[in-house]
Amino acid sequence: METIKKLNHIAIVVRDIDASLPFWENALGIQLDHIEEVPSQQARVAFLPVGDSEIELVQPTTAESGTASFLEKRGEGLHHLCVEVADIDAMLAQLKTAGIRLINEEALVLPGRKMAFVHPKAANGVLIELYELTEPE
Amino acid sequence: METIKKLNHIAIVVRDIDASLPFWENALGIQLDHIEEVPSQQARVAFLPVGDSEIELVQPTTAESGTASFLEKRGEGLHHLCVEVADIDAMLAQLKTAGIRLINEEALVLPGRKMAFVHPKAANGVLIELYELTEPE
Repeated sequence: METIKKLNHIAIVVRDIDASLPFWENALGIQLDHIEEVPSQQARVAFLPVGDSEIELVQPTTAESGTASFLEKRGEGLHHLCVEVADIDAMLAQLKTAGIRLINEEALVLPGRKMAFVHPKAANGVLIELYELTEPE
Repeated sequence: METIKKLNHIAIVVRDIDASLPFWENALGIQLDHIEEVPSQQARVAFLPVGDSEIELVQPTTAESGTASFLEKRGEGLHHLCVEVADIDAMLAQLKTAGIRLINEEALVLPGRKMAFVHPKAANGVLIELYELTEPE
């Protein structure tokens, strides 16, 4: 049976990364790894490593993105949970067999990784990102 | 400077643990550690270890609990993020110095652990639990 290897990251939607970082860096003492523009997600993302996982602060860069709409409806807060799997195609097949509703029926193939989202209606209201590293870190 | 050691757990509020477990166990392949009644939190909690962290499914057992109110207002979903620290008293002092709003000004001392919550208004809308293990695991 396919399983989850680890929590890869927790994504938090924020209005303004620069205004948010002092809490995470100076108050909680987490060292920022880097900030990246992610045009495919219409977002700017700050990566904050915590133990074996990461906290990601996601700031929408357009008004049309999913995270911009989340921000408008619900305000800042926890957005999704990303879990790492060894074989995402096998995991998607296992989920389909179990009748689980998916956002992506097939994995999106990106440089170094494959990813797919499970529908929150199948997962107690939680948006779950499945993630497979396809190149060694 | 005090920092965060790791993500201890992610808590997800659910209506019914028994109805929810098949997704996490059979579809995602996570092995349930145990289910516990937690009267102090007016909840029943399922512990699902994932890598070095845990996913916790929290089912309110009274209508007056914080999680019951969350469920009524927002439905099922991500509830809080628990981060582990080496010295919670030092972390609380550091947060106060930084002017961070806390729910618990002093740590609650429980068997084997100390805990305190940071106010979500200080943390991009995220309820953060600070957690110190006071006995070896």
